[in-house]
Amino acid sequence: MAGNTYGKIFKITTYGESHGKGIGVVIDGCPANIPITEEEIALELDRRRPGQSAIVTQRKESDTPFIMTGVFEGVTTGMPINIFIPNEDQRSKDYSHIADKYRPSHADYTYQVKYGVRDYRGGGRSSARETAARVAAGAVAKKILLQYGVTVNAFVSQVGNITLPNDAYPIQTNLIESNIVRCPHGPTAQKMEDLIREVRKDGDTIGGVISCIIEGCPPGLGEPVFDRLHADLGKAMLSINAVKGFEYGEGFKAATMRGSDHNDAFVNENDKIVTKTNHSGGIQGGISNGMPIFFNVAFKPVATIVTAQESVDMEGNATSVEGKGRHDPCVVPRAVPIVESMAAITILDHLLRNKVYH
Amino acid sequence: MAGNTYGKIFKITTYGESHGKGIGVVIDGCPANIPITEEEIALELDRRRPGQSAIVTQRKESDTPFIMTGVFEGVTTGMPINIFIPNEDQRSKDYSHIADKYRPSHADYTYQVKYGVRDYRGGGRSSARETAARVAAGAVAKKILLQYGVTVNAFVSQVGNITLPNDAYPIQTNLIESNIVRCPHGPTAQKMEDLIREVRKDGDTIGGVISCIIEGCPPGLGEPVFDRLHADLGKAMLSINAVKGFEYGEGFKAATMRGSDHNDAFVNENDKIVTKTNHSGGIQGGISNGMPIFFNVAFKPVATIVTAQESVDMEGNATSVEGKGRHDPCVVPRAVPIVESMAAITILDHLLRNKVYH
Amino acid sequence: MAGNTYGKIFKITTYGESHGKGIGVVIDGCPANIPITEEEIALELDRRRPGQSAIVTQRKESDTPFIMTGVFEGVTTGMPINIFIPNEDQRSKDYSHIADKYRPSHADYTYQVKYGVRDYRGGGRSSARETAARVAAGAVAKKILLQYGVTVNAFVSQVGNITLPNDAYPIQTNLIESNIVRCPHGPTAQKMEDLIREVRKDGDTIGGVISCIIEGCPPGLGEPVFDRLHADLGKAMLSINAVKGFEYGEGFKAATMRGSDHNDAFVNENDKIVTKTNHSGGIQGGISNGMPIFFNVAFKPVATIVTAQESVDMEGNATSVEGKGRHDPCVVPRAVPIVESMAAITILDHLLRNKVYH
Amino acid sequence: MAGNTYGKIFKITTYGESHGKGIGVVIDGCPANIPITEEEIALELDRRRPGQSAIVTQRKESDTPFIMTGVFEGVTTGMPINIFIPNEDQRSKDYSHIADKYRPSHADYTYQVKYGVRDYRGGGRSSARETAARVAAGAVAKKILLQYGVTVNAFVSQVGNITLPNDAYPIQTNLIESNIVRCPHGPTAQKMEDLIREVRKDGDTIGGVISCIIEGCPPGLGEPVFDRLHADLGKAMLSINAVKGFEYGEGFKAATMRGSDHNDAFVNENDKIVTKTNHSGGIQGGISNGMPIFFNVAFKPVATIVTAQESVDMEGNATSVEGKGRHDPCVVPRAVPIVESMAAITILDHLLRNKVYH
Repeated sequence: MAGNTYGKIFKITTYGESHGKGIGVVIDGCPANIPITEEEIALELDRRRPGQSAIVTQRKESDTPFIMTGVFEGVTTGMPINIFIPNEDQRSKDYSHIADKYRPSHADYTYQVKYGVRDYRGGGRSSARETAARVAAGAVAKKILLQYGVTVNAFVSQVGNITLPNDAYPIQTNLIESNIVRCPHGPTAQKMEDLIREVRKDGDTIGGVISCIIEGCPPGLGEPVFDRLHADLGKAMLSINAVKGFEYGEGFKAATMRGSDHNDAFVNENDKIVTKTNHSGGIQGGISNGMPIFFNVAFKPVATIVTAQESVDMEGNATSVEGKGRHDPCVVPRAVPIVESMAAITILDHLLRNKVYH
Repeated sequence: MAGNTYGKIFKITTYGESHGKGIGVVIDGCPANIPITEEEIALELDRRRPGQSAIVTQRKESDTPFIMTGVFEGVTTGMPINIFIPNEDQRSKDYSHIADKYRPSHADYTYQVKYGVRDYRGGGRSSARETAARVAAGAVAKKILLQYGVTVNAFVSQVGNITLPNDAYPIQTNLIESNIVRCPHGPTAQKMEDLIREVRKDGDTIGGVISCIIEGCPPGLGEPVFDRLHADLGKAMLSINAVKGFEYGEGFKAATMRGSDHNDAFVNENDKIVTKTNHSGGIQGGISNGMPIFFNVAFKPVATIVTAQESVDMEGNATSVEGKGRHDPCVVPRAVPIVESMAAITILDHLLRNKVYH
Repeated sequence: MAGNTYGKIFKITTYGESHGKGIGVVIDGCPANIPITEEEIALELDRRRPGQSAIVTQRKESDTPFIMTGVFEGVTTGMPINIFIPNEDQRSKDYSHIADKYRPSHADYTYQVKYGVRDYRGGGRSSARETAARVAAGAVAKKILLQYGVTVNAFVSQVGNITLPNDAYPIQTNLIESNIVRCPHGPTAQKMEDLIREVRKDGDTIGGVISCIIEGCPPGLGEPVFDRLHADLGKAMLSINAVKGFEYGEGFKAATMRGSDHNDAFVNENDKIVTKTNHSGGIQGGISNGMPIFFNVAFKPVATIVTAQESVDMEGNATSVEGKGRHDPCVVPRAVPIVESMAAITILDHLLRNKVYH
Repeated sequence: MAGNTYGKIFKITTYGESHGKGIGVVIDGCPANIPITEEEIALELDRRRPGQSAIVTQRKESDTPFIMTGVFEGVTTGMPINIFIPNEDQRSKDYSHIADKYRPSHADYTYQVKYGVRDYRGGGRSSARETAARVAAGAVAKKILLQYGVTVNAFVSQVGNITLPNDAYPIQTNLIESNIVRCPHGPTAQKMEDLIREVRKDGDTIGGVISCIIEGCPPGLGEPVFDRLHADLGKAMLSINAVKGFEYGEGFKAATMRGSDHNDAFVNENDKIVTKTNHSGGIQGGISNGMPIFFNVAFKPVATIVTAQESVDMEGNATSVEGKGRHDPCVVPRAVPIVESMAAITILDHLLRNKVYH
């Protein structure tokens, strides 16, 4: 049953495979009269693009977006916006050696079982390349959110065991793009970069964590009891390739806390009701309370490694699989705009959902 | 915009408030010809019921379920099943003292902002009482899953800083109900119980973690790219009151691992393809691979505490709020059947979704 | 796959069978702060109630609605509203003679084939009794629409071959309830009543047409390309028991017309753009244009007749079926509030959908 | 709120405007392993294509479909299928004269009111050109239905006042494509063609009716109470440009009939339960009963006529509008494949929905 659509009002449907003609997204329900250009979308895609720095995959793809429909004389018309990103490298021969093998911890086996057929070229649709379409839609969502004063900033907060030190807080979002890791704390970013280089030298990969802060979000977003704002943010994040966990506010740490420490007292600050602390992470009862929203997303290490690994082929015979060059040693630097995009799409969708009450 | 429905094929819509006539659930899309009785549903509700043990709230509610529709001559007919659970304690006077105040870290403020009105009696619909309706629906889902050989077992794996020791693994699910904490390791359960009693004596509350294992799940469940099986499990868990985090497989620990350690090698075991390890947690590419599925859910400490807390009233004036008796010092023992129910509903829904391919 | 929910924002889910404990509806997404009482709902149910006049079924049912949830201190809270209507006559013995037979042109056979089981008592859920739940929800929708200045009036425009004469136009909606047929033209109403009495004397039934006028609808409602306003109105009407056709504006007559006769010229009337004629029926390009919306709905004759009819039983053996008393000779007088309700729910749903643009 | 998606399992989302880069459709939920080629899709598009005969618009468009994604090595993979049809004639200058005017009975005014902006070139997205995308998706649906033995045939049954005579029944579907009107009765087709030519000579347009027969449909399709099979067919048809009415089985004629004439007796024919007559039109209680399904769809006359018509401009000033060449004098000959496509998509979607029960 179709699972390629996300959102209820600002609805995105992504399509396309890693090595076919291209990938893209149809945005249905985008507000009208929003100015948007291919250049603005390209800026966000560049942050996700392969080959952007020394610590990511060196595949050459320019990821040029084409607005095919839904924009007329420079503004959105309320009609479906189809953004298409052609694939440049369509060589499928690189993948013939794994056409009948199941790569460990990839989606090869499960896709084959589910659909009875699969596009083995670079994982086909299960490739993280699909997320470029989300970033294109996210660029539109972020632009609209800005009109409402909402900003979405994600950054790398952990690579392997390297985490942000206390003096990195409060996060300086203007530092995020100052290094290739996208970590807003210079010395930590350097350590992370060193670790990633070391891991790559070993032909291995490493996991990490991306954190996200949403500021300026008005109170009232979120639709209990099931479509709580954080439940939809969680689903959005968990739908990204390689994500293994999601927590917001104090997250798993809250399990260790007492109510007297965790509760956020309400105070009246210049005729605005705010909380003194923000252990809740900006969401209470599933609805935003006007404080900053923040959450963490855990990524596993990339499954493609250079070392030979034990596996089976489609006939069930034991075999061996080894990755061939050009893969990311660590996914988090390039995943930052993906996290931002899915967060922006979710917040915008809920902002539009909330309009029916007013 | 309506958010009280969950599921696409096995769809549940819950209704009702903490202190009105009652709460309930309409299940639409339940398969026909399934034998189901009110007694079976009551058994699950008893596990969530207040007053069940010394470490939970001492409110007196029997939580008796009535199957109002959709069952004829003992079996489901494929028509909507409405299960109604009357409220026994409808006294609203207990809550007059908070009618115009916002309890810290409750949903009072956000509901007021969003809807412009709220049922202040016990939190109204934002009360965790709503989850009893989910447990009723979960009882039906679990019964159907059993016909497919799928079992869902949740248990308490952490209270405060007390966690399961290594020798608690592999989990003995038959021990879960052997103690009032629902922790499948006797000595740890005792420590957790002691902590909960101590916290209550302090008029305080404490958080915890519930873990869940799903066994017998066939490969092929999950609908990429957005409706990945774990994304829907995550959303289901995050939609439960007080949940702050979700992780599956290695979860946040995966962020620290290398690919060579995290990858699960495929092997052929008696003509069945399995993985040697299960770091993936039974899901790859968003689709179940036939291995056990497991995940963790973090719960914050209950917001209602006896101590006086700083807050504001509806006019924005500073005020003070203090909880009045009869609340849980720790939510996880009673939340175990809620986690199981939402997991069962999600898995059954995906199992039915997957039928369209065959 | 669940089909008991209608609407996207103002969502109704009906439940219940003809001879079980009762029927009802859960409204999810109802705006908050709307005053609503059981009495107001009962007024609409009375228009659909059996036994209301000499030309409808003489079954005795009072159809008393109970607001179970979602209303607090007299107003809606934005939470799900569950309205329950108990069944008074639950005697199933009346139906034992058809328990294993398929009544011609009823849903007995198709339900049995689809679900493998059915509630044979009075048709179970396929009974038109289900529509009482829609009328309850419609009462809420109509009340909200009134706040926006929108009125919905349906009436009987045809019974058998008796149609409204030209001098019945423009329709005087205040006359609709002046006779038991609900036809806003006295002399025609009398002819219709005579025909219905004659048909009943023959132990037979007769079809008819209900027309509906929606006034005060703002321009802009409707969501092309698939959720055109009239497409959703059409689906809503076709989902009512016994409906065989839907047309709006000139309807089937438009097939015989020339563009030069059918087109509606735009004119500026006191700074408001209106059309000189209204062949379009108030909807252009699937979106309301501010003119009155009108449509016709064709109902087939009730399938239950007194005469013996040829049929088969569940084993496929030839058998005979004959109706036992207490059924409507003509469904249209009682179906008027059903048409109004489904129209009101559809218009309100679209009015709320349209809010996301503003 | 987004309205460009149709279907629940076999879901289509159309995009694109009359004079932009092109139009297309994303099919999500298409079964895997279905062989499909661009040539097969082109065959159906040719039946809808402008310029195909002397009685349709003489615009030159080849309507070449490109399968962009979702098909690998000749078969569908279960992934989203994006079919793109480039626009060849993108000249927008032809439309500058109506850029600020509202064409009578077109969607210009309602789109402007709803979205605050519109693509005035040829109606933009409100143009019937959008339906080419539906025909592309319908070609896929029809191919899959054939594997289940289901055929869908539509034909022109009325143009103006010219209707099919009795001796045209039973319909000979092999004659549908034997003339340019797509009427399966030669002499009537000739009269219709003459009328269309005459109407065009007058610079005018004329309405018509398309009928559709679905054979081989298994019993059990349709999801009461709201998603009745005919309710979804009705919505699908009413979502097509220019459609004003839908009826199935006896349709509006049923309003004039008695139950004793309308009821369909069940009989056992070679161990298969069938009905002796088929007044029901193959659907009872909203569920297919295995008999042929048939329905009629009324189309209004095309709104674009050569004669000058009274209207207003965007500032509300009185003005005059006249059509410029190249429009259809009668839409029904080209709309036959559109009706078939929407019918096929609806039946396939319900066929897949019904799988969850088995």
